[in-house]
Amino acid sequence: MPEFDLIELIRSRCLALRDDVVLGIGDDCAILEPAPGHELLVSTDTLVEGVHFLPDSDPWALGWKALAVNLSDLAAMGAEPAWALLSLTLPCADAAFVTAFADGFGRLAAEHRVALVGGDITSGPLAVGVVVQGFAPRGTALRRSGARAGDAVYVTGTLGDGLAGLRCLQATAGSALAHASAEAREAVIGRVTRPTPQLAAGRVLRGLASACIDTSDGILADLGHVARRSGVGIEVLASSLPASPALCALYAGDERLAVQAGGGDDYQLAFTASPERETEIVRRLAAVECAVARIGRVVEGRGVRLLDDGGAEIVLEHRGWEHFA
Amino acid sequence: MPEFDLIELIRSRCLALRDDVVLGIGDDCAILEPAPGHELLVSTDTLVEGVHFLPDSDPWALGWKALAVNLSDLAAMGAEPAWALLSLTLPCADAAFVTAFADGFGRLAAEHRVALVGGDITSGPLAVGVVVQGFAPRGTALRRSGARAGDAVYVTGTLGDGLAGLRCLQATAGSALAHASAEAREAVIGRVTRPTPQLAAGRVLRGLASACIDTSDGILADLGHVARRSGVGIEVLASSLPASPALCALYAGDERLAVQAGGGDDYQLAFTASPERETEIVRRLAAVECAVARIGRVVEGRGVRLLDDGGAEIVLEHRGWEHFA
Repeated sequence: MPEFDLIELIRSRCLALRDDVVLGIGDDCAILEPAPGHELLVSTDTLVEGVHFLPDSDPWALGWKALAVNLSDLAAMGAEPAWALLSLTLPCADAAFVTAFADGFGRLAAEHRVALVGGDITSGPLAVGVVVQGFAPRGTALRRSGARAGDAVYVTGTLGDGLAGLRCLQATAGSALAHASAEAREAVIGRVTRPTPQLAAGRVLRGLASACIDTSDGILADLGHVARRSGVGIEVLASSLPASPALCALYAGDERLAVQAGGGDDYQLAFTASPERETEIVRRLAAVECAVARIGRVVEGRGVRLLDDGGAEIVLEHRGWEHFA
Repeated sequence: MPEFDLIELIRSRCLALRDDVVLGIGDDCAILEPAPGHELLVSTDTLVEGVHFLPDSDPWALGWKALAVNLSDLAAMGAEPAWALLSLTLPCADAAFVTAFADGFGRLAAEHRVALVGGDITSGPLAVGVVVQGFAPRGTALRRSGARAGDAVYVTGTLGDGLAGLRCLQATAGSALAHASAEAREAVIGRVTRPTPQLAAGRVLRGLASACIDTSDGILADLGHVARRSGVGIEVLASSLPASPALCALYAGDERLAVQAGGGDDYQLAFTASPERETEIVRRLAAVECAVARIGRVVEGRGVRLLDDGGAEIVLEHRGWEHFA
């Protein structure tokens, strides 16, 4: 199938209409009308087959996830999403693959009124690059750099489901995970293949959180970015890390802690705030049906330490995801 | 070398300072301040090793070109460039490669005051994705869709050097091209490895050109996009296609015509305009030291026809670049 037919196939499945798209797909550039009084927020993430997703992944879920991980970056800044670009690199012009991919991408885009305004399709090893753009009222975007000693540390939802889901996808017939409850396995697999960007949570945290990040690399690694950019230290209480019922059915004890603290791909929001704001934070997050747990505190110093209930440091073998490590 | 060190290595080489970058590399998103009264123009192009550039290409030139082909899309719309994102997929964390790449990218970025505001680095088969963003005063951006019957068709610079350069890069020791003048070979190789985006030309064409596109796929294929989007036909006079002295030293006759009309990678601007504006167009392009040639006319109908001086159609075997063709 020629390139232009593939583009039309994608375009027809991603038809979110927005008044601020002056000219969409089909010219050298898209022409867009930024929102007055707002700052523009831009982020990009690329997913490569065999690195970020398994070979022969379901294309619908891949389309969803490629957009979701990018929207998660907008969520972390408290931004309202608006536009996306999609760069698809495909080994061959497989119309069935592209159709399913565009259906998954388009479904999530429609949920959040994201217009696909451009991109490109090239031949090569399978990879998906997405750019998202959104808006926040001037001066209100959440950053990694605002954490201050004395702040409390919070995380939305639960941790570890992403890594548990990946392990379930990879589990061989004889492994312990393959024998765990099908319900628990399906629950965590859904979390890694079809993650939910916490956009509503990010928006309500504007003006409340002092720093925010999404948990894509693992909570300790992600809080490490916050600590470094804010010039502070962070202490995380291991027993306070939230776990889903599915994770509890699959892992226990130290093994569960390692998955919760070191696993990536969760796409929750980790944030810091003055403890005085806690009531307001819990109330506002509850209003958007988002669970939140207090997991630690910001201290003078540097780095992130994981502590047991007695205050002793727990050292994990694996503290999160890094390329080329 | 860890991912974060590679990012710092790139950041330090792409330090264009702009007041409209509120927050650059280092958070979940960049925070940007769009220009009031302007529309935002966005484009992206991905270059894949073995598809868009030869294996073992010079990394400095690759960095330059990855940005240049994207800036060429902004040029085609008459936009002023502002910001870029860079997505690098690398087989290994090669600091020497990344340094040279960032030097080439940063050199062109500095020439046009483009700030690198974000991106990502992942492991995988070598590929480079770039997103560029720029501005044009509201309502002035050039499009592919405005050509009208009676307009003349123009192109900046010369055509065919891109394909000739690629062939010289690939020429084996025994081939005719390998024996051509070294000066001519170097000239066309420079055109394909280090193309010049025609940003100044695009800007001065605002308000004068009725339609515009950059010549990345080959002049006939590119004018085909203009004809389709404008709902018109285009006739191109073969003898009027501009050739560089280097191209004339390398090719003659029908072979030269095939390279000029069917070769891509030139990154000139092809545009249409009322013939009454020709004096003004030539004057304004001369002021930015840009050569221009009148190469045809817009007619009722559809499609692009290449004509000889007697008005008979010339049918070429290869009319331009398409993926998955």
